[in-house]
Amino acid sequence: MTTAELIEAPSSVATASNSTTMKALVYLGPGKRSWEEKPRPSIHEPGDAIVRVTTSTICGTDLHILKGDLPAVPAGRILGHEAVGVVEQVGTGVSKFRVGDKVLVSCVTACLTCDFCRKQMYSHCRTGGWILGCMIDGTQAEFVRIPHADGSLYSLPAGADEEAMVMLSDILPTGFECGVLNGQVKPGDTVAIVGAGPVGLAVLLTAQFYSPAAIFMIDLDDKRLAVAGQFGATNVINSSDGNAAKRVMELTDGGGVDVAIEAVGVPGTFGICQEIVAPGGRIANVGVHGKPVELHLEKLWDRNITITTRLVDTVTTPMLLKIVRSGKLQPAKLVTHRFAMSDIMKAYDTFGNAAKEGALKVVLSN
Amino acid sequence: MTTAELIEAPSSVATASNSTTMKALVYLGPGKRSWEEKPRPSIHEPGDAIVRVTTSTICGTDLHILKGDLPAVPAGRILGHEAVGVVEQVGTGVSKFRVGDKVLVSCVTACLTCDFCRKQMYSHCRTGGWILGCMIDGTQAEFVRIPHADGSLYSLPAGADEEAMVMLSDILPTGFECGVLNGQVKPGDTVAIVGAGPVGLAVLLTAQFYSPAAIFMIDLDDKRLAVAGQFGATNVINSSDGNAAKRVMELTDGGGVDVAIEAVGVPGTFGICQEIVAPGGRIANVGVHGKPVELHLEKLWDRNITITTRLVDTVTTPMLLKIVRSGKLQPAKLVTHRFAMSDIMKAYDTFGNAAKEGALKVVLSN
Amino acid sequence: MTTAELIEAPSSVATASNSTTMKALVYLGPGKRSWEEKPRPSIHEPGDAIVRVTTSTICGTDLHILKGDLPAVPAGRILGHEAVGVVEQVGTGVSKFRVGDKVLVSCVTACLTCDFCRKQMYSHCRTGGWILGCMIDGTQAEFVRIPHADGSLYSLPAGADEEAMVMLSDILPTGFECGVLNGQVKPGDTVAIVGAGPVGLAVLLTAQFYSPAAIFMIDLDDKRLAVAGQFGATNVINSSDGNAAKRVMELTDGGGVDVAIEAVGVPGTFGICQEIVAPGGRIANVGVHGKPVELHLEKLWDRNITITTRLVDTVTTPMLLKIVRSGKLQPAKLVTHRFAMSDIMKAYDTFGNAAKEGALKVVLSN
Amino acid sequence: MTTAELIEAPSSVATASNSTTMKALVYLGPGKRSWEEKPRPSIHEPGDAIVRVTTSTICGTDLHILKGDLPAVPAGRILGHEAVGVVEQVGTGVSKFRVGDKVLVSCVTACLTCDFCRKQMYSHCRTGGWILGCMIDGTQAEFVRIPHADGSLYSLPAGADEEAMVMLSDILPTGFECGVLNGQVKPGDTVAIVGAGPVGLAVLLTAQFYSPAAIFMIDLDDKRLAVAGQFGATNVINSSDGNAAKRVMELTDGGGVDVAIEAVGVPGTFGICQEIVAPGGRIANVGVHGKPVELHLEKLWDRNITITTRLVDTVTTPMLLKIVRSGKLQPAKLVTHRFAMSDIMKAYDTFGNAAKEGALKVVLSN
Repeated sequence: MTTAELIEAPSSVATASNSTTMKALVYLGPGKRSWEEKPRPSIHEPGDAIVRVTTSTICGTDLHILKGDLPAVPAGRILGHEAVGVVEQVGTGVSKFRVGDKVLVSCVTACLTCDFCRKQMYSHCRTGGWILGCMIDGTQAEFVRIPHADGSLYSLPAGADEEAMVMLSDILPTGFECGVLNGQVKPGDTVAIVGAGPVGLAVLLTAQFYSPAAIFMIDLDDKRLAVAGQFGATNVINSSDGNAAKRVMELTDGGGVDVAIEAVGVPGTFGICQEIVAPGGRIANVGVHGKPVELHLEKLWDRNITITTRLVDTVTTPMLLKIVRSGKLQPAKLVTHRFAMSDIMKAYDTFGNAAKEGALKVVLSN
Repeated sequence: MTTAELIEAPSSVATASNSTTMKALVYLGPGKRSWEEKPRPSIHEPGDAIVRVTTSTICGTDLHILKGDLPAVPAGRILGHEAVGVVEQVGTGVSKFRVGDKVLVSCVTACLTCDFCRKQMYSHCRTGGWILGCMIDGTQAEFVRIPHADGSLYSLPAGADEEAMVMLSDILPTGFECGVLNGQVKPGDTVAIVGAGPVGLAVLLTAQFYSPAAIFMIDLDDKRLAVAGQFGATNVINSSDGNAAKRVMELTDGGGVDVAIEAVGVPGTFGICQEIVAPGGRIANVGVHGKPVELHLEKLWDRNITITTRLVDTVTTPMLLKIVRSGKLQPAKLVTHRFAMSDIMKAYDTFGNAAKEGALKVVLSN
Repeated sequence: MTTAELIEAPSSVATASNSTTMKALVYLGPGKRSWEEKPRPSIHEPGDAIVRVTTSTICGTDLHILKGDLPAVPAGRILGHEAVGVVEQVGTGVSKFRVGDKVLVSCVTACLTCDFCRKQMYSHCRTGGWILGCMIDGTQAEFVRIPHADGSLYSLPAGADEEAMVMLSDILPTGFECGVLNGQVKPGDTVAIVGAGPVGLAVLLTAQFYSPAAIFMIDLDDKRLAVAGQFGATNVINSSDGNAAKRVMELTDGGGVDVAIEAVGVPGTFGICQEIVAPGGRIANVGVHGKPVELHLEKLWDRNITITTRLVDTVTTPMLLKIVRSGKLQPAKLVTHRFAMSDIMKAYDTFGNAAKEGALKVVLSN
Repeated sequence: MTTAELIEAPSSVATASNSTTMKALVYLGPGKRSWEEKPRPSIHEPGDAIVRVTTSTICGTDLHILKGDLPAVPAGRILGHEAVGVVEQVGTGVSKFRVGDKVLVSCVTACLTCDFCRKQMYSHCRTGGWILGCMIDGTQAEFVRIPHADGSLYSLPAGADEEAMVMLSDILPTGFECGVLNGQVKPGDTVAIVGAGPVGLAVLLTAQFYSPAAIFMIDLDDKRLAVAGQFGATNVINSSDGNAAKRVMELTDGGGVDVAIEAVGVPGTFGICQEIVAPGGRIANVGVHGKPVELHLEKLWDRNITITTRLVDTVTTPMLLKIVRSGKLQPAKLVTHRFAMSDIMKAYDTFGNAAKEGALKVVLSN
């Protein structure tokens, strides 16, 4: 089959579409990145769509790749897995989207047909999962190819606030699915969130969907804790003195918390979760871990606890879109800095010094 | 209030009741036990019942106590937390049982009124939980005092098979609740059980309530594996060559198991569970652990797995009684040896050499 | 056993306790009630407590009894099943409460030991359930006997707001359990509540624990709908023109609602629920029905819906107490009128003309 | 796009593929059917597949269509929604199937991308659902076009028993999902199935996945009840004397059943379910209803019951395939008669006189 047979003609709305190149943020091996000219993506499979990126952002994982922590990512890769954009081309197998549609790009690509997708585990899709900006070129560019477009894009209303929406590519479903849903947060619960970075704050915002009685936010950084206080934490605890677990136990009269959510990804914070979880409680891991942790089964074997791990499946994206539309969630709260996409090198500098810059999410606009 | 006010008069059915002493198996400090004369128990609280023990058994935990592994258990303690018997006396606050009732003694004592009991977590009852034969005198005796009798005893039909029923004191609810329910075994699932001792076999028997497609049984002992084969395991794997995980992955075409159930209590077997669990799968810990284990979050953080721990709550005892009555479960299969209670010293010798003796559960009759 | 043996001595805090009579609101047969002298209740069973009522209220069900709709209720019965009070005496089998404790009286009496209580279905307790002010004398009096006190009373902090707390006797757990939990209200859901009386408003307040995207409130009375708007309804619909279902379908672009909650108890309102429920949706019945309804299985058989009924179990009372304490629920909002208990005859007049009087809940204080 | 661009070339395995016509069972208006020449189907959409039917069967719904009960079905329609076959052609958007693949045709067509499919409610797929042999031409033919092939076909192993497999097109997932899953059958439960026709028997077979303690089978026909007894019913009750509900209440000591499953589709049988359901129990409707039923809310409002309806979603098909492969389910038990597809007119005669002929499922082979 020729490429011509696979695609619908690009519409006239896509005015930039005559060029065959574009600018993109390219990973050039550990510690190196550049904003450079790359070929524009094209349709490979009938299910593909090409999206013109209008808004994107940078994720902590992008920094990990840049540091060389994910050796599977080759030099030359365009980074980024979060975006809002406009459909530029679609393959013949795409049924839900048309050229010109405004769409949210999910960080997870889902074929919808494999065994994992049929079980709503899009994160483990046999031909998708988290591949954008990692196994295939990503969204920090003018254009991006999205495989399995029917399962990986979501329609946005014409007037949608792109800054808010791009928070639904990854961070909000991640916080909600891996932290809140897996932690089974319930009305009246006492919840502790360890880590007040962007993902921890996404957990904090979405945990409130379930009206817990108390939310303790634990972090080393007072600025982030202050933000957490504004975002609805009932108590904030600076853990730099090593007494965070002790403080939580005091606040709960020695009982511990119903739900402890790990949003950092290091052994120490997972350790805090083990110390503070109440009998019958849940530990929901959200953080990306690079090494094993010690699990104190000698203390926990008889405490009826549940520990979960999860890569976001983005199955709750339609629900999150409804909640944002209802006004019960304001994702744009998470945005602290804004850049033109062409200034993405500066944006990385800012995001890479998040603590100093007071940065949470930085928004990039094309 | 005097004791006289607290109790109903013992009925004439309890012919042995005039004596003030009884024989009991007493823990005398690490490595020491004897079958000796002890005072007969009496009602302390309005909710107490005194049960004349007709059938009991020995649990692996009793051996742990004897070894001195549970230093909280004082010398002088009567051991045992499993029994069938007849109610001899009841306090004024007991509403469900009368003198002469045939009863199952649950290994877990439940007040039913505290916050944990109200959440069906009897294992963590504020004034109960697992206390029999551990924090208070137990069932390997002629008589035993059962606190919170309304929550801790279950009526048995007059003609009930006591050997079968005593398996419902601990081992079957433990296997079912901690292994099968927490592991969320479902029709069509592939299940691995690591450990083919009595508890692992109880998991095996009760896992079949949910019609998994395959059950792999893993152990070091071929005799126990042969029993597992007779009890319904679809595959048995001797792990002594260190290749059990590899073998499971081959059997599942590299996919791993939906549910991995740890029924030993050492780091190595918990490690096998981590190696074989499929994305989206569950690890249900049943074993009693004495030290921490290494949790490979660097591999598991993105695999959507659930790990659970649990001390048996015995909330499923009424259901298990129904299933036994229906003939769909034959608990007496687990019984390999029978002794008179007065021969309990010999019974301990046999059970203490379980591998050599081919012992699973040993039944003691008064 | 003598009564003397069953009870703890009343404490000196209970200054009114020397008298053997008290005043109470007595049902005298259809249409007749009086505030009259009655014997003070005493301990009958070891599990009983006598509570001095400090705050009570009137329920719609009390009006039903007065009309003669519940012929099982005999003339002479003291009405009322909602109260806050102070423990005056306890039987020997009561373990959780002491004389002088401030308590919430649950509308449902729970032995905690029967098969239904063990399944958390206190509403169907073999020796309890809804019996107060119906099968046994109730709370609209100076004193009330509470059977199974350990399962039927809840400790209150000393300074608790009694007006708020008495809303937790019945109306809030009823709205929450029968409406919100059975209706499985989820974040992002569209919910319709048919009936804006006190119970419908209790559904409205507690549905918001789960952050639905939209809540439609349907009633005939604009005043109640205005209250609903203040309490968080996103849309209010006056159904007096017979077009409520049509209006809901318009508001949902023809899709219908995820959850339809019936809070009236007549065929017409249950009919509206059937017309507006979306495929995959839930109809949760809260209303007390006096006659059959037509269930349109010819339309609904293939629509994957769930219909539930429930008498409140009050299993969520501890959780509701936590939420009230956290400030996320203000039950006192439901109180529109206040009377001294001795003015209860007037309070009934007001509550019996709720529409005219703009009455929701009337609070009675001793 | 031309048809040529949409399809892969038919493979040489499909020897009959040169002809442009085929034989099919055609509905010719109420009461009329014929086995006649029809054009062979072709690819219309990129997601379509053409399947050469090797095995099919007749469903009770086909008889309803023939009677004219579903006026939306036009004369000229090829009937049938159950089949096993071989893929003959695929559109360009089909990713999971290739020409020559052996497949199970699901009775429900699922696009996998619409809002209902994303919620696993394939039955309500916006462009699918139950359309085969009803809104589009069906499987009682030599060839059939299957829209959304990736979501509507399932791979079969080469040597699969087609008779067994064709039972997974509709009847087994219907019994399992609408009856057993919606009824929440649990180990130890008491279950009543009202209706021992093919679907009721499918409920009976699949209910046993969950080890209920008792299964009562209720029907008017002793022959079918005898089959039910062989298939695992613990009690069979002939309801022709009008005393079925009374008998169930006796068998349950007045308690009623945990789950009542309606598998007929008339008011009387739904009425039996209402009479026998225990407090806390579930009524799962499986039957196709043509008129409203009376729902006795005046008796059921306070009994904590759940009533469900469902059109099969076939989301459990992969699981059922696993269970069949494990040998724990023998679907071929349901087959009583076998015909060549060319004798389908006779097969309809037999199936249409099921009671007299002792027919359950009739298998048709091409």
